[in-house]
Amino acid sequence: MCELLAMSANVPTDIVFSFTGLVERGGVTGPHVDGWGIAFYEGKGNRIFKDVSPSCDSHIAKLIKSYPIKSEVVISHIRQANSGGVSLENTHPFNRVLWGRNWTYAHNGQLTYYAKFSSNIFLPVGETDSELAFCWIVEQVAIKFGETEPSDMLPVYEYISELADTLRSHGVFNMIISDGINLMAYCSNNLCYITRRAPFGKAVLKDTDVTIDFYKETTPNDVVTVIATRPLTTNEQWNILSPGDWCLFRLGEVITFSQ
Amino acid sequence: MCELLAMSANVPTDIVFSFTGLVERGGVTGPHVDGWGIAFYEGKGNRIFKDVSPSCDSHIAKLIKSYPIKSEVVISHIRQANSGGVSLENTHPFNRVLWGRNWTYAHNGQLTYYAKFSSNIFLPVGETDSELAFCWIVEQVAIKFGETEPSDMLPVYEYISELADTLRSHGVFNMIISDGINLMAYCSNNLCYITRRAPFGKAVLKDTDVTIDFYKETTPNDVVTVIATRPLTTNEQWNILSPGDWCLFRLGEVITFSQ
Repeated sequence: MCELLAMSANVPTDIVFSFTGLVERGGVTGPHVDGWGIAFYEGKGNRIFKDVSPSCDSHIAKLIKSYPIKSEVVISHIRQANSGGVSLENTHPFNRVLWGRNWTYAHNGQLTYYAKFSSNIFLPVGETDSELAFCWIVEQVAIKFGETEPSDMLPVYEYISELADTLRSHGVFNMIISDGINLMAYCSNNLCYITRRAPFGKAVLKDTDVTIDFYKETTPNDVVTVIATRPLTTNEQWNILSPGDWCLFRLGEVITFSQ
Repeated sequence: MCELLAMSANVPTDIVFSFTGLVERGGVTGPHVDGWGIAFYEGKGNRIFKDVSPSCDSHIAKLIKSYPIKSEVVISHIRQANSGGVSLENTHPFNRVLWGRNWTYAHNGQLTYYAKFSSNIFLPVGETDSELAFCWIVEQVAIKFGETEPSDMLPVYEYISELADTLRSHGVFNMIISDGINLMAYCSNNLCYITRRAPFGKAVLKDTDVTIDFYKETTPNDVVTVIATRPLTTNEQWNILSPGDWCLFRLGEVITFSQ
């Protein structure tokens, strides 16, 4: 299996604290040693750092931990390989361009009998069930909504949730997907989130000995939601999603919560 | 304008030496301060590091200079913006997936009256003439060759050279494009390459005070071609391409040279 981490914020925010906790699960407190990746959106553009080394001792992960890149939408993933070998093309997050917009995605879980989710235009590069499912989602969305981006994206995400329901019937399908503005979290069995806003307090990481005082790092208007497979901190109340739940976040706020 | 750098090699090779010279042109010996990027292929996968900071003082460029990532195909670009603002979505190299393969591209030059090079499926994310031209190329290739990758890629690159001829009639179009195995260099006015093989010797960078002895860094069977807008070293003979020339490289060797 794998671990997911994502962020939606109303101001460019760095994810160093949460990422520092996550990478410990890539070899120290968790067995997810088969590579990792993180995508940062900056406007319509994004950049994805990937490495096949375990996140706990990756040079590039060290950079991400020490160099705060500020972003309003972040998706990260640490991998424990099941389908597909340990290689860059099998490393999440995956990215495709639809409607002139970068769509980024990461998956936790494992699907069975997934070969039927094939596509014609949006083809996978690697061999994972995860990328195949992503390509299938993007292609189904393109077929249903056509060549031009809809002005209202909510129906697009509602449709993605239906596609995710179908995928979930083939196994475990916890998913994060984003167009760079909206960020969707779909729960199969392990996904939770926390929204931090004023008054900000301290947070204590579960996986390593780090405490942060968000009061010192934020302004009173900041709203920052962090999503993870399992809670990353020990002293805060995370919202645990149930199977089939999905949330749409924008600028740190919950826009839609479907149970 | 901008500067291009690319590499094709028969063994995974780092590009630290050449990149160290290139980044100086991003603010020290050259005016290309509007961001930079570098794509490394590893098998079918690739990873693209991008930054909008000038390459000469970018934290991420420092990582690339100090942490040798080994690859058989590399494409890099430092930008001096003309069309499109300074932003991540306007930063080269650009990537699209066609036939389940990552296609990566960077452009030096400027096109006029380029709005006609529009596409329907492969849409640009940013506002540059460069990305528009790339999307147009990928879409034209997809239209001509269909949904399945041809077994012989030479006709694909011959067709890309025809498309590049058309683009060149609209301005300056020096281009690097790769599918991760083959790497094509198309010259409009500024492009050159050097192929290094045994017996290896010393090379002296033009833009900063660095000398390398490739004899100590290589094995006798290594073949490494480096392509750049302008020669990066002072003591070696670079092959200067003429307008309309294009080369196809694979595993460090020239496969096709069309004059």
